[in-house]
Amino acid sequence: MKVDLISYTIDCDKMPGIAAFTSCSKRSPAELRKTKTKEQTDDFIRRVVAYGHHSVIEHSYFSFSIEGISRACSHELVRHRIASFTQQSQRYVKFNELNTVVPPKIEKNKEAKKIFDESIEKSADAYQKLLDLGIAPEDARYCFPNAAKTNFVVTMNARSLMNFFALRCCKRAQWEIHELAYRMLKLVKEKAPVVFENAGASCMQRGYCTEGELGCGLAPTLEEIKKGTAKESKIKEYTEKMMKNNS
Amino acid sequence: MKVDLISYTIDCDKMPGIAAFTSCSKRSPAELRKTKTKEQTDDFIRRVVAYGHHSVIEHSYFSFSIEGISRACSHELVRHRIASFTQQSQRYVKFNELNTVVPPKIEKNKEAKKIFDESIEKSADAYQKLLDLGIAPEDARYCFPNAAKTNFVVTMNARSLMNFFALRCCKRAQWEIHELAYRMLKLVKEKAPVVFENAGASCMQRGYCTEGELGCGLAPTLEEIKKGTAKESKIKEYTEKMMKNNS
Amino acid sequence: MKVDLISYTIDCDKMPGIAAFTSCSKRSPAELRKTKTKEQTDDFIRRVVAYGHHSVIEHSYFSFSIEGISRACSHELVRHRIASFTQQSQRYVKFNELNTVVPPKIEKNKEAKKIFDESIEKSADAYQKLLDLGIAPEDARYCFPNAAKTNFVVTMNARSLMNFFALRCCKRAQWEIHELAYRMLKLVKEKAPVVFENAGASCMQRGYCTEGELGCGLAPTLEEIKKGTAKESKIKEYTEKMMKNNS
Amino acid sequence: MKVDLISYTIDCDKMPGIAAFTSCSKRSPAELRKTKTKEQTDDFIRRVVAYGHHSVIEHSYFSFSIEGISRACSHELVRHRIASFTQQSQRYVKFNELNTVVPPKIEKNKEAKKIFDESIEKSADAYQKLLDLGIAPEDARYCFPNAAKTNFVVTMNARSLMNFFALRCCKRAQWEIHELAYRMLKLVKEKAPVVFENAGASCMQRGYCTEGELGCGLAPTLEEIKKGTAKESKIKEYTEKMMKNNS
Repeated sequence: MKVDLISYTIDCDKMPGIAAFTSCSKRSPAELRKTKTKEQTDDFIRRVVAYGHHSVIEHSYFSFSIEGISRACSHELVRHRIASFTQQSQRYVKFNELNTVVPPKIEKNKEAKKIFDESIEKSADAYQKLLDLGIAPEDARYCFPNAAKTNFVVTMNARSLMNFFALRCCKRAQWEIHELAYRMLKLVKEKAPVVFENAGASCMQRGYCTEGELGCGLAPTLEEIKKGTAKESKIKEYTEKMMKNNS
Repeated sequence: MKVDLISYTIDCDKMPGIAAFTSCSKRSPAELRKTKTKEQTDDFIRRVVAYGHHSVIEHSYFSFSIEGISRACSHELVRHRIASFTQQSQRYVKFNELNTVVPPKIEKNKEAKKIFDESIEKSADAYQKLLDLGIAPEDARYCFPNAAKTNFVVTMNARSLMNFFALRCCKRAQWEIHELAYRMLKLVKEKAPVVFENAGASCMQRGYCTEGELGCGLAPTLEEIKKGTAKESKIKEYTEKMMKNNS
Repeated sequence: MKVDLISYTIDCDKMPGIAAFTSCSKRSPAELRKTKTKEQTDDFIRRVVAYGHHSVIEHSYFSFSIEGISRACSHELVRHRIASFTQQSQRYVKFNELNTVVPPKIEKNKEAKKIFDESIEKSADAYQKLLDLGIAPEDARYCFPNAAKTNFVVTMNARSLMNFFALRCCKRAQWEIHELAYRMLKLVKEKAPVVFENAGASCMQRGYCTEGELGCGLAPTLEEIKKGTAKESKIKEYTEKMMKNNS
Repeated sequence: MKVDLISYTIDCDKMPGIAAFTSCSKRSPAELRKTKTKEQTDDFIRRVVAYGHHSVIEHSYFSFSIEGISRACSHELVRHRIASFTQQSQRYVKFNELNTVVPPKIEKNKEAKKIFDESIEKSADAYQKLLDLGIAPEDARYCFPNAAKTNFVVTMNARSLMNFFALRCCKRAQWEIHELAYRMLKLVKEKAPVVFENAGASCMQRGYCTEGELGCGLAPTLEEIKKGTAKESKIKEYTEKMMKNNS
């Protein structure tokens, strides 16, 4: 997959601070925008985000170009409802070749890869033959596999992204959307490092794991913290590693 | 596909009227609920819906059991963001057999059907072989075709349904979600006939087609109405036929 | 204020469980609705809600009649965006008398009460005089105080209600919406005791307070839990007391 | 009131076109952003917006500083749910003076103005006296009138703005939010003239009035168009006049 940040709100790392000041000031947002320094807005954003008061970070928006994710992944992606999507259509685009995403565990397994490739080839072949018979792309694509690649423009605000990261940067997330999430995280942290200072998996944001016995072990559960048996969290290191590996 | 209405708001055909009266009355909703007759709420709902003031119909909710639609269709379905979805997981459910949706135009074409069936069989076969090799269902499913069946619980309010019908009851919609929409329309009209009195495709709701030169011809365009060249709309008959055929 | 539950989803305490089973079953929601017992759905709902997986509880909806809250309170109420509102209009309803909400701390203070009453009386008087001069209600109401009473139909799903309770059952919330929240909580717990088993303020749902130094002290902070200095939480008792006092 | 556009999406007049091309192209959004000219995106945006296919314009966001609107107006403003708001708090800001919005019809009527002013003065006076008695601002403000001024940061995408304009640029809208809408329209048209080419009241966007007998007469109804009795629409001139008068 290839992920690019193709647009965003001007002053995306400052706007939430301007909003925060507006709520408790006699001055207008336009005035505050001129008078408040980045240092002042940084300080305020850090405090409100730490308390989980995420409403002010809704004022910062980010638009991504997402290229070459599978339809399995895209089906999960569009379940995030506080977001705007425009997807490459399988109804209106006629494909000459079938580009697919190969799951790493299949890629690594020679035998599995062979089975996978043959299945994909058969699907691609059937699609072309159906087109040749006069079947429309919108029907021929019923043969296409979940692995088929698709493209997207996705726009989300920082609050919705925080929720996206909480769920999809979690090690329990499906591997492909997990990778996508870290690529997106890396890109927004570059533009809005203060807003996304503690962004990442749920355990990164909260300080503990909420998945109970299903948890991956990177962060302690609240139960373990209460009992005093918590090990040190390794989610920060994991987050940095994942961002580095996916860029 | 099989579609059932498995739950809905109590008094779903009256609640929007109670709400409408609340906006212009000194009395509380609880009182209005007792004093306003169905005839009175019917009359008020008809007037506000005719003016396109749809906010009051948000108070009526409907939950559907949707069984056996394709993943091609479900990917379109979940794009409706003012709705709640719970979908059968391809990550957590291990499938012994691959049930699929066959597009009618493929079903009707003997040669196409053969190509389609072979492709599906190959996909199903690959999935099972990958599982046998120890590949997890969440990865093996990358071979699964768009045609694979899935189940859903979907909950939407009447306003969001009106928008869903406007788009998906339109003849330009993809055939499978088009059929789904008419099945859902039939079910809600039985429970809330007044709220959904004029529900259907965009042209049914507005009185003209907005698709311009891409329109299907069932209803005239606004341009044709202006020019005085409009033919009589046949969308009502089409709506009734579609509901009858899909039940 | 007077709050009534005037409608809700049929089987509101079971629907989320049916949805949860759908995600990991081969059977359709309609079948699961027939075969799964209340005991089975109860058990599943408890587990998913405990993990914070709230999406399935979106399938249960609740409609309230809210009578006689102030416009100060209603302005906060309508900030909850995942909800449907129909409000009594100050533009279209002509008021003969001005009914107001008196803040308890003003009620209890004789001197304050006198100042308050005179101000309200003046506002009511001005409104009537403006109407007499031919000013429309929509303009005359600019004199009306925040204390002026208003009515609402509000519909929210259980997930949005959980968020509403998290914020508004917190002792830091404004007193009037705080009271409203506990009245609503009491009503929904009667209809859906399993879905709302742990509903209440953020600290009730999470097990700790997120407000840091601004917290009320009813529940320990995560910091205190980590340090081993946490006192026992009293939020359960507070929740029960508040529901009892406001019914 | 004072309204400023304080932030927006980079390339806000081009992004929707990039998204539109993505849906029917083999190329990624990032590539299309480089290769498609403004002329090409303009052309595509015009076509899709004309068909009412507004989803692609969701990718453009606009943040406004709104200063000095009344609480009557702000209560209507926050009813738009597909938007982000941060409002100046009457709970946390202690006001030394009460700044108010005077409805024009009261301003013009000497007698009415006197009644209005006295009522406002009494409210302001009561507020200060209550503070002096130790009453908190959050309770003292119950005396404050709807006319009291407030500030906002509001962020909306172009699609939500189109809906906001449809409702609030309509002559039937309340005068204050009507003025606000035209101020906002003027600001966004400067930055995204193609996206907002036909933005304005519902009749401006649709070509006819949907308010039936309640309509203002600026645009014909669909009924009149059908009957051939439609007069020429004057909504374009009205829109230009309103934007000019409110800047």
